[in-house]
Amino acid sequence: MSLEEVKAGYAGQEVVVRGWMHACRRLAQVTFVLLRRGADVVQVTFTPEEAEAQLPRSLGHESVLEVRGVVAARAEAPGGAEVIRPVVRVLSAVSEAPPVVLHKREAQGSLGTQLDHAAVALRHPRRRAVFRLSAAAMQGFRETLGARGFVEIQTPKLVGGATESGANVFELGYFGQKAWLAQSPQLYKQMMVGVFERVFEVGPVFRAEPHATTRHLSEYVSMDVELGFIEDHRTVMATLREVMAGIMARLEASCGPELALLGVTLPQVPAVIPSITFEEAQAWIEAQHGVSVRGEPDLAPQHERWLGAWAQEAHGSDLLFVTGYPMAKRPFYTHPQPGHPTASNSFDLLFRGVELVTGGQRLHRYEAYEAALLRAGIDPAPLAGYLEAFRYGMPPHGGFAIGLERLVMQLCGLENLRWATLFPRDTHRLSP
Amino acid sequence: MSLEEVKAGYAGQEVVVRGWMHACRRLAQVTFVLLRRGADVVQVTFTPEEAEAQLPRSLGHESVLEVRGVVAARAEAPGGAEVIRPVVRVLSAVSEAPPVVLHKREAQGSLGTQLDHAAVALRHPRRRAVFRLSAAAMQGFRETLGARGFVEIQTPKLVGGATESGANVFELGYFGQKAWLAQSPQLYKQMMVGVFERVFEVGPVFRAEPHATTRHLSEYVSMDVELGFIEDHRTVMATLREVMAGIMARLEASCGPELALLGVTLPQVPAVIPSITFEEAQAWIEAQHGVSVRGEPDLAPQHERWLGAWAQEAHGSDLLFVTGYPMAKRPFYTHPQPGHPTASNSFDLLFRGVELVTGGQRLHRYEAYEAALLRAGIDPAPLAGYLEAFRYGMPPHGGFAIGLERLVMQLCGLENLRWATLFPRDTHRLSP
Repeated sequence: MSLEEVKAGYAGQEVVVRGWMHACRRLAQVTFVLLRRGADVVQVTFTPEEAEAQLPRSLGHESVLEVRGVVAARAEAPGGAEVIRPVVRVLSAVSEAPPVVLHKREAQGSLGTQLDHAAVALRHPRRRAVFRLSAAAMQGFRETLGARGFVEIQTPKLVGGATESGANVFELGYFGQKAWLAQSPQLYKQMMVGVFERVFEVGPVFRAEPHATTRHLSEYVSMDVELGFIEDHRTVMATLREVMAGIMARLEASCGPELALLGVTLPQVPAVIPSITFEEAQAWIEAQHGVSVRGEPDLAPQHERWLGAWAQEAHGSDLLFVTGYPMAKRPFYTHPQPGHPTASNSFDLLFRGVELVTGGQRLHRYEAYEAALLRAGIDPAPLAGYLEAFRYGMPPHGGFAIGLERLVMQLCGLENLRWATLFPRDTHRLSP
Repeated sequence: MSLEEVKAGYAGQEVVVRGWMHACRRLAQVTFVLLRRGADVVQVTFTPEEAEAQLPRSLGHESVLEVRGVVAARAEAPGGAEVIRPVVRVLSAVSEAPPVVLHKREAQGSLGTQLDHAAVALRHPRRRAVFRLSAAAMQGFRETLGARGFVEIQTPKLVGGATESGANVFELGYFGQKAWLAQSPQLYKQMMVGVFERVFEVGPVFRAEPHATTRHLSEYVSMDVELGFIEDHRTVMATLREVMAGIMARLEASCGPELALLGVTLPQVPAVIPSITFEEAQAWIEAQHGVSVRGEPDLAPQHERWLGAWAQEAHGSDLLFVTGYPMAKRPFYTHPQPGHPTASNSFDLLFRGVELVTGGQRLHRYEAYEAALLRAGIDPAPLAGYLEAFRYGMPPHGGFAIGLERLVMQLCGLENLRWATLFPRDTHRLSP
């Protein structure tokens, strides 16, 4: 059943429609039931006698019905048609009012209420539409990379020692040993460049973030890419540009109704995304906003918003690369900038003033890793399996990671990452 | 660079080729280097003088080279051409012999050695090919479902209470609470049927299996499907048939060289996969093999092998459905068989005599869940968020899960699941 099958052109045809009782309006002369199915609703119209016999007043919203009936044209009904002479079979009867009202234009209820009652709240057409965008974004990501010879991998989330950093890692007992939950597939995707040269992965990552913010969660979906035989980080940035363009093209092709419902304007992805160096960005912030940021190793969220606004004004672009972050705060595998060793061959991609992607070139020579680990004071022993990749030959390579929920949050202009996560996990929330 | 660019038709052209030094043969008159790039190798031919000047003897296998040279026809070389007059740039020099020999036809070394040195062993063309099949299987799974209106979801792996069963669950500390790693997305994919009606997910699942077998690991990739508005489990089986056919079609279209290299014959997926009930299977085992299995709630691996052989003989099919497993050992959400309440509307799909998929129809009425949990002695309180889906209306629905590694293991005739897993996790192994 779909609206397609219940439209005016089919008047007189017998149909079977199934769905959730989205709304029910009992008037003196007629009762209207809106049956919801996916993003569609279909109107079923009852005479008072039909309603009396088949629609007990105890049958609440969200009951699941199967209705046999006949299509009739009615200009005021969704799709210009309705189902009349209904014969109802109740597939699932609901007797209580749902904890979240679904038939109003906006999903009712605070964030907390909606998260507590996710199984119901996510049915709201506007909530649902957000996750339809997530699915299309993943599809666009994969198909763009698949068409360019990237191979999908699945790397382990349970790791023993070889975590990217020691901080904010979840630890668990593992058959008498200790294991950790992977904070990213970073080390594994690098190893896999030695196997497939170009790889990607879409999967969960885990961060034991001890504080609650609107843009961090303890579990999220990371869309990871890593590729070999690059020139430097600019090869990686060019790939990222293609991925962003591919995601937007997929959203445009597959999600017209959802984008319209949510009022989302997709960003144009320019042929070359504007780019600014970290040092230039700091100088600009100081000159334009009078804030002294010299010597800071990173940009604060407010700085990113300013830069995002500038990219919009100066370049008409929703996207802005910031390149050459200081080595100081970057992870041990970061490749320095030739001729400027305190800066790195790294980049962030800001999307509408929020950091969406981090990436860069990695070290690829074994001796460079030995030196970098020594400098960082990291014990190389637990990383032995990872370091073998370099010991036995790795090409120049780099990559990036896009946070799926953050991408969708920014696309939809949501003010909290939790609105873009089906079942968010934070310091307080582990269920449903 | 690819073999395409270094073939006889291009003789005289200047090229740049990059790759791993797969093999190096120094003869009196000539030195041959095979550069490996992806599944290709390209021969680079050095005169003694060129080799002397550019190929130090310390440069070992797996060194990464960039070679500028000229294409020349040579019938004996791979692709009928070679690169001559080489100018070599060493991108990454390897000085030690790799722990796994990569240039022999078969990957050398025991399973343990290869897993210890995965970063190198996975580069072997035959090991690599297996994971190329994994990637194509995921692609075939997703594209078959995407074309049928299924929406991809990403559900949490960190769960608080709402695990499918209490046994073999990894537990961890979570900001002063306890959390568990999801054993499957079962409860979440059911909730999401209320949102999208048809959903799928590809992601890791975790089982704290305390014993080591050749076909169980503590982390694997589950390809999950759940769909609403079904008639019964047969609707689900029909969807699974389409998914299996779609996976095989994708493998055939994308993995010709890998299938040939590994000697894999893809199964034909019949229009209707043969099917036998659990009770018929038990009677057949007793009659044919003289083993008394009456009253057993499940089939043993040996029984599945016998049934697989029978499906091959009687129906010429690599695939066999076994339906109607006893309710006794099935999880609480299992739908009983109408008119035969000790049997379930469930199925397993055997692939070449090994259980590959489990699925079935689920309960969909709230009262049925209340009764089932009471019967099973399960506390409904931690499941409240899940049960809300049913309390507020769910259609008849069902689904299944395919183990990715097990599928690839059976396809390739591997004797251990670890050969089909990039970085396997078992009671002893957590790294690399």
